[in-house]
Amino acid sequence: MKKIMIINGPNLNLLGVREKNIYGSQDFPSFFDELRQRYLTVDLSYFQSNHEGEIIDKLHEIGFSYDGVVLNAGAYTHTSVAIGDAIAGITTPVVEVHISNVHKREAFRHHSYLAPNCVGVICGFGLNSYKLGIDSFL
Amino acid sequence: MKKIMIINGPNLNLLGVREKNIYGSQDFPSFFDELRQRYLTVDLSYFQSNHEGEIIDKLHEIGFSYDGVVLNAGAYTHTSVAIGDAIAGITTPVVEVHISNVHKREAFRHHSYLAPNCVGVICGFGLNSYKLGIDSFL
Amino acid sequence: MKKIMIINGPNLNLLGVREKNIYGSQDFPSFFDELRQRYLTVDLSYFQSNHEGEIIDKLHEIGFSYDGVVLNAGAYTHTSVAIGDAIAGITTPVVEVHISNVHKREAFRHHSYLAPNCVGVICGFGLNSYKLGIDSFL
Amino acid sequence: MKKIMIINGPNLNLLGVREKNIYGSQDFPSFFDELRQRYLTVDLSYFQSNHEGEIIDKLHEIGFSYDGVVLNAGAYTHTSVAIGDAIAGITTPVVEVHISNVHKREAFRHHSYLAPNCVGVICGFGLNSYKLGIDSFL
Amino acid sequence: MKKIMIINGPNLNLLGVREKNIYGSQDFPSFFDELRQRYLTVDLSYFQSNHEGEIIDKLHEIGFSYDGVVLNAGAYTHTSVAIGDAIAGITTPVVEVHISNVHKREAFRHHSYLAPNCVGVICGFGLNSYKLGIDSFL
Amino acid sequence: MKKIMIINGPNLNLLGVREKNIYGSQDFPSFFDELRQRYLTVDLSYFQSNHEGEIIDKLHEIGFSYDGVVLNAGAYTHTSVAIGDAIAGITTPVVEVHISNVHKREAFRHHSYLAPNCVGVICGFGLNSYKLGIDSFL
Amino acid sequence: MKKIMIINGPNLNLLGVREKNIYGSQDFPSFFDELRQRYLTVDLSYFQSNHEGEIIDKLHEIGFSYDGVVLNAGAYTHTSVAIGDAIAGITTPVVEVHISNVHKREAFRHHSYLAPNCVGVICGFGLNSYKLGIDSFL
Amino acid sequence: MKKIMIINGPNLNLLGVREKNIYGSQDFPSFFDELRQRYLTVDLSYFQSNHEGEIIDKLHEIGFSYDGVVLNAGAYTHTSVAIGDAIAGITTPVVEVHISNVHKREAFRHHSYLAPNCVGVICGFGLNSYKLGIDSFL
Amino acid sequence: MKKIMIINGPNLNLLGVREKNIYGSQDFPSFFDELRQRYLTVDLSYFQSNHEGEIIDKLHEIGFSYDGVVLNAGAYTHTSVAIGDAIAGITTPVVEVHISNVHKREAFRHHSYLAPNCVGVICGFGLNSYKLGIDSFL
Amino acid sequence: MKKIMIINGPNLNLLGVREKNIYGSQDFPSFFDELRQRYLTVDLSYFQSNHEGEIIDKLHEIGFSYDGVVLNAGAYTHTSVAIGDAIAGITTPVVEVHISNVHKREAFRHHSYLAPNCVGVICGFGLNSYKLGIDSFL
Amino acid sequence: MKKIMIINGPNLNLLGVREKNIYGSQDFPSFFDELRQRYLTVDLSYFQSNHEGEIIDKLHEIGFSYDGVVLNAGAYTHTSVAIGDAIAGITTPVVEVHISNVHKREAFRHHSYLAPNCVGVICGFGLNSYKLGIDSFL
Amino acid sequence: MKKIMIINGPNLNLLGVREKNIYGSQDFPSFFDELRQRYLTVDLSYFQSNHEGEIIDKLHEIGFSYDGVVLNAGAYTHTSVAIGDAIAGITTPVVEVHISNVHKREAFRHHSYLAPNCVGVICGFGLNSYKLGIDSFL
Repeated sequence: MKKIMIINGPNLNLLGVREKNIYGSQDFPSFFDELRQRYLTVDLSYFQSNHEGEIIDKLHEIGFSYDGVVLNAGAYTHTSVAIGDAIAGITTPVVEVHISNVHKREAFRHHSYLAPNCVGVICGFGLNSYKLGIDSFL
Repeated sequence: MKKIMIINGPNLNLLGVREKNIYGSQDFPSFFDELRQRYLTVDLSYFQSNHEGEIIDKLHEIGFSYDGVVLNAGAYTHTSVAIGDAIAGITTPVVEVHISNVHKREAFRHHSYLAPNCVGVICGFGLNSYKLGIDSFL
Repeated sequence: MKKIMIINGPNLNLLGVREKNIYGSQDFPSFFDELRQRYLTVDLSYFQSNHEGEIIDKLHEIGFSYDGVVLNAGAYTHTSVAIGDAIAGITTPVVEVHISNVHKREAFRHHSYLAPNCVGVICGFGLNSYKLGIDSFL
Repeated sequence: MKKIMIINGPNLNLLGVREKNIYGSQDFPSFFDELRQRYLTVDLSYFQSNHEGEIIDKLHEIGFSYDGVVLNAGAYTHTSVAIGDAIAGITTPVVEVHISNVHKREAFRHHSYLAPNCVGVICGFGLNSYKLGIDSFL
Repeated sequence: MKKIMIINGPNLNLLGVREKNIYGSQDFPSFFDELRQRYLTVDLSYFQSNHEGEIIDKLHEIGFSYDGVVLNAGAYTHTSVAIGDAIAGITTPVVEVHISNVHKREAFRHHSYLAPNCVGVICGFGLNSYKLGIDSFL
Repeated sequence: MKKIMIINGPNLNLLGVREKNIYGSQDFPSFFDELRQRYLTVDLSYFQSNHEGEIIDKLHEIGFSYDGVVLNAGAYTHTSVAIGDAIAGITTPVVEVHISNVHKREAFRHHSYLAPNCVGVICGFGLNSYKLGIDSFL
Repeated sequence: MKKIMIINGPNLNLLGVREKNIYGSQDFPSFFDELRQRYLTVDLSYFQSNHEGEIIDKLHEIGFSYDGVVLNAGAYTHTSVAIGDAIAGITTPVVEVHISNVHKREAFRHHSYLAPNCVGVICGFGLNSYKLGIDSFL
Repeated sequence: MKKIMIINGPNLNLLGVREKNIYGSQDFPSFFDELRQRYLTVDLSYFQSNHEGEIIDKLHEIGFSYDGVVLNAGAYTHTSVAIGDAIAGITTPVVEVHISNVHKREAFRHHSYLAPNCVGVICGFGLNSYKLGIDSFL
Repeated sequence: MKKIMIINGPNLNLLGVREKNIYGSQDFPSFFDELRQRYLTVDLSYFQSNHEGEIIDKLHEIGFSYDGVVLNAGAYTHTSVAIGDAIAGITTPVVEVHISNVHKREAFRHHSYLAPNCVGVICGFGLNSYKLGIDSFL
Repeated sequence: MKKIMIINGPNLNLLGVREKNIYGSQDFPSFFDELRQRYLTVDLSYFQSNHEGEIIDKLHEIGFSYDGVVLNAGAYTHTSVAIGDAIAGITTPVVEVHISNVHKREAFRHHSYLAPNCVGVICGFGLNSYKLGIDSFL
Repeated sequence: MKKIMIINGPNLNLLGVREKNIYGSQDFPSFFDELRQRYLTVDLSYFQSNHEGEIIDKLHEIGFSYDGVVLNAGAYTHTSVAIGDAIAGITTPVVEVHISNVHKREAFRHHSYLAPNCVGVICGFGLNSYKLGIDSFL
Repeated sequence: MKKIMIINGPNLNLLGVREKNIYGSQDFPSFFDELRQRYLTVDLSYFQSNHEGEIIDKLHEIGFSYDGVVLNAGAYTHTSVAIGDAIAGITTPVVEVHISNVHKREAFRHHSYLAPNCVGVICGFGLNSYKLGIDSFL
């Protein structure tokens, strides 16, 4: 059974509350239940933090034993060289995902410090971006 | 039955021949056969052209009747305002895909004139990017 | 009788269909009929293509015998050095026109590779931009 | 009878004197007489100032009662956020015109702070740019 | 009794008329009456001009005897090195205020040539920005 | 009674110790006592952290029940897209304040990722910036 | 016998007609006859197109069997990532040539998307640039 | 007898008052008396204004009869395309002078919109810059 | 006895594990033992964190009593204005060190927000950079 | 008697030979004779070199005993940080001069690495620039 | 007999020693012997220097009598305005050559200060670039 | 015995004379005597030149036999691609050192053309930077 972790970055704990026109109205825990139902043969876990350092710590902790990480680093995508380095430093492959299509938004969201160290990027499909991210490992 | 077209842009006819270290060694027609086998309930078609204008013509032709387009516009992704406008002008939703992770390559490949008008973007998963693109419509 | 050709570039065949909030709801053929009625003493012709190369071919074909070209090169305005060179290479004067006021839109639409080689530029007057373009030759 | 004002900005009082290779040899008052003859059914008036503030004052004064302004703000086109704001603040529509084709000249003349708030832009037709500007209101 | 002058720059005479969605619907003279009522122990005066030069003249005139200036230079904030120099040249402290939150608007409004020579900046509080500006001197 | 929280970001715990020529010699706790005395009818609270993540956590915690936040995010103002997103994601209005006039300092301090999502910005008035920030809610 | 193709891009069919001060007054077919006479032991062929897509198609067609391509892509040199990719995708070596010295002309002609994938670049020698290009393969 | 006018721009009326560390402590009228004494064979006159428009008006007024203008446009040097155009539009030669060495100051003072249309530039010699400017005409 | 602390930033806990081609194969704790042996007369301590905030906290904690800090802030070097401010706010001198020669790597690693507030910078000597950093205090 | 040296940089030995349309047709030695005649009370000397290093050596040699240097560093003006540092390192004041008005020429000639360390700059007066430079010391 | 000089700039004396993967393993003197053998009817000479000033001196010395210069200025190509000016100042035509294809290397090697003043540029053909350079004069 | 050469670039012969606030008051020869005393087991030599070409010559001369170079190229650090290439072309490892902390100074001193080809960089420790540079080889 493959071990895959979904890691969500800053403000994604507000999903279903915050800016619903961009991010939709479902909160992540209920969506995660759906994912668990859908991927019965995957050992799926979840971590969220608003702290750049905690995301790095988590990547280090699981990054040599898991089979994949689906990472939505939120705003840190665009500013964190440190998370980018963490991805380069571990052996677990990481897929970058975004709920919104970042290319429709502010210019500073078009650049990712993580993407060059990830397997690939998936953005714009709402919460389905996570499903496609998991599928990419299967 | 959903009608989905895969459109490939310039140089993708060389797949399996050209720069195998980046794009792999399978040619697209044989991969398309695989796709057809995999998505038996989808009316899947395929178009490739090295001509910017032909890609625009094709988008116009099918862009009001198909259910989805999976578009790998290759190099035109980074230079064609005209294809970007064509996507904005049609009603069929378009997903931008790339075989390679463009964020690992030259800086001029990090920008897309198409992405702001697409539903979303998927890149870096090899030929699987096309599968994920089709999945996003299902 | 003056010979004037209107040349429309990519996606302008979708006029009346595409993005009506920007471009209005009239299609170009019916508008061209109106123009013909209005300019009875002008030998008015019309060409549209989504292909950069065909626009260049047409400019070469008519560019030594016509009295004027009213050119709306659409998206190619902002990306085509080649059309700009074609205008510089012919003897027929060319007027650049746009339906929308490009200065209200994305920054990449503020620059024209054609304008330095044209007589002048007219933009923002809807389909009337074409009339003003023709008038400029009369 | 439509009320239209032509407003000329800095140095345009030197028309016919200054840089004739760019601007031609006719002075504006004699040209304005021609315009009056040509547009007998238009209530045409004229204002020129070298002062940014006076142009703003004039736009405020007439900008809620006139039917149109044909504005050649000269050098202020490229530097005056304040005139741009004045145009946005009034209800009379404004058309930006230039005698020369600014796109053939120095790079700093390619940008306009006024254009995004105007109906449209006409440049490069010599004094005929004013005629086309007036026509655009008729 | 402290002498404080409010100086308003270009287009602010249109307050209550112009772009109400940005600036609100109250005109400045009636607001200034309110201010006078509110600050009975302050010798409050008011000056508005659309002319960069008049704003400089006024700053010179009062800039060695007043106790404070609350300056909303409008568009000149972003383009006038000369007003910036005038502020540096006088001894009266100046506070820069804006009705709107300039950081939500066009990029060219994010930069101020005045701010480095002012005591501080207050923006985004509607007409209350002026009250906070006066308060900063009390 | 209005509930307002002052949130201070990195290094502001060193107030009164660090770079006194820029920030003055009073420490924040003693100043906060003063504020409490001054605003007897406001339920005023205070939070400081050097951790970007803790500032985001705090904004989430109080951002749906408080009446206002006066936020001096210090250096994070200029680098944190994540705090900017947190402000956008909550319903409590936030005012950005700075002790120093950031426009007199290094260029990288002139840009704020927070300001576009705040009500407004107040900078340059020393510790009085906080008072003006509180006043803006009253 | 070595097989070498000369490929000319947009507007080069106007040689001898267009901008003679830059490109000279000889047309290419007559020059090609000269070349044939000069290189009797080379299997020399010629292709010209104004269409980016046709140039790519031609490169694909001959790019695995010819011994060399002398490519003057004209304006596409500066804008076509797609032709650059085509050169990278074939095995025949390509030499980029220009009639004029592009470094004496507009800044946008100083950059080539093709050169990094070519063997080398030769520019500025008039039609002799083609001879030097052929010589480089001999 | 040669007719030469010294024109001073914004804030130079504060000479001797303003920023003495940069500009020295002598006021201009007393310095002008000195100049008059020194250049007895020159018809020397003086004009100062804080208004961009008045400087343009003055240049037009004298710009076809005087033998030279020594122009210190102050801050307008760096922002006024309009004064630059006025210099280009008149026949009297203009020399740009500055009291301070602008190259030691803020980057935005290193660029001049006037210099390309002036005979030459003299800066950094304190009030002696004016003398050198006059000498250049003698 | 001098008190010197070595502070390591994000991902440096992976030393000996991560990207050995760049950082070598020794882990830091074993290297720190070596350092302790080498500098018997120095009170040497060590701190590592992946959290920007914890690094700031630590700098505040020791920054008024220690004799020196050897700081390898890793990726935060290039993004953290806050750590830069912390260094400016304390009295203990800080030396910036890097294991790799950052100038051989991506452009975003060439800039440091910390260096202007440090005594100096040492980079490129592998783990010896730390020794040189300590030596600089002795 | 004041000791002043004129130092000319690269290519100025070609004066009277090279690009006469820019630099005139007089060679420098004959002009220097004129200068000697004109400034009988000045101990005037002259040095020219095409070597950046020799110019630095010369500045060091005379830079603590001479009363002034009139330096036309030619192209090194725009590229030599080293000469700029040499000027900063000596005690003799240096005046930067240019024969042509550099602001009318290529953009890379608008910037000087020397000017911030010089007393002032004089350009555009032909050989008279040297006279004005000498005068500035008298 | 035509007189042609080959001038090599900095580090080209290391040819055959330095970075053989880029420049090959033949030293220049032995290659120059080959050239002499090949071009028996050309008066061929050779000069190499690591000194910018010596290259300028040499260009001046021969630049009015030789028939051509084949110049590989190495690194000075990208930094020396002075050599560029020297080329403009002489009458002998100069061809810029490079052994490597500079467009495949660092971005700062893509720009040449010499090329605008040269006849043309040849790069990327190894030592054959020199042959093509000589051929261009024959 | 290891052979190490210290090479100093332009203006460093003025040490102890020039800008003492930045560089201190000790001259280099007396400091070099100290170094000799300190490193008795190192064959230490010294070279200084203000000539870029002589520094390159020296690097070539010793660059295949010495064990290390400690190079303070002064201003050439920021402008000399040629010295950077020389370092890449030799086999002796080079360490770049600076007396001052270049990151506290003008922006153009933050970039080094040498560093990418050096082992590492040491700056900001006054003359001790040289000691640390030598130590790095021991």
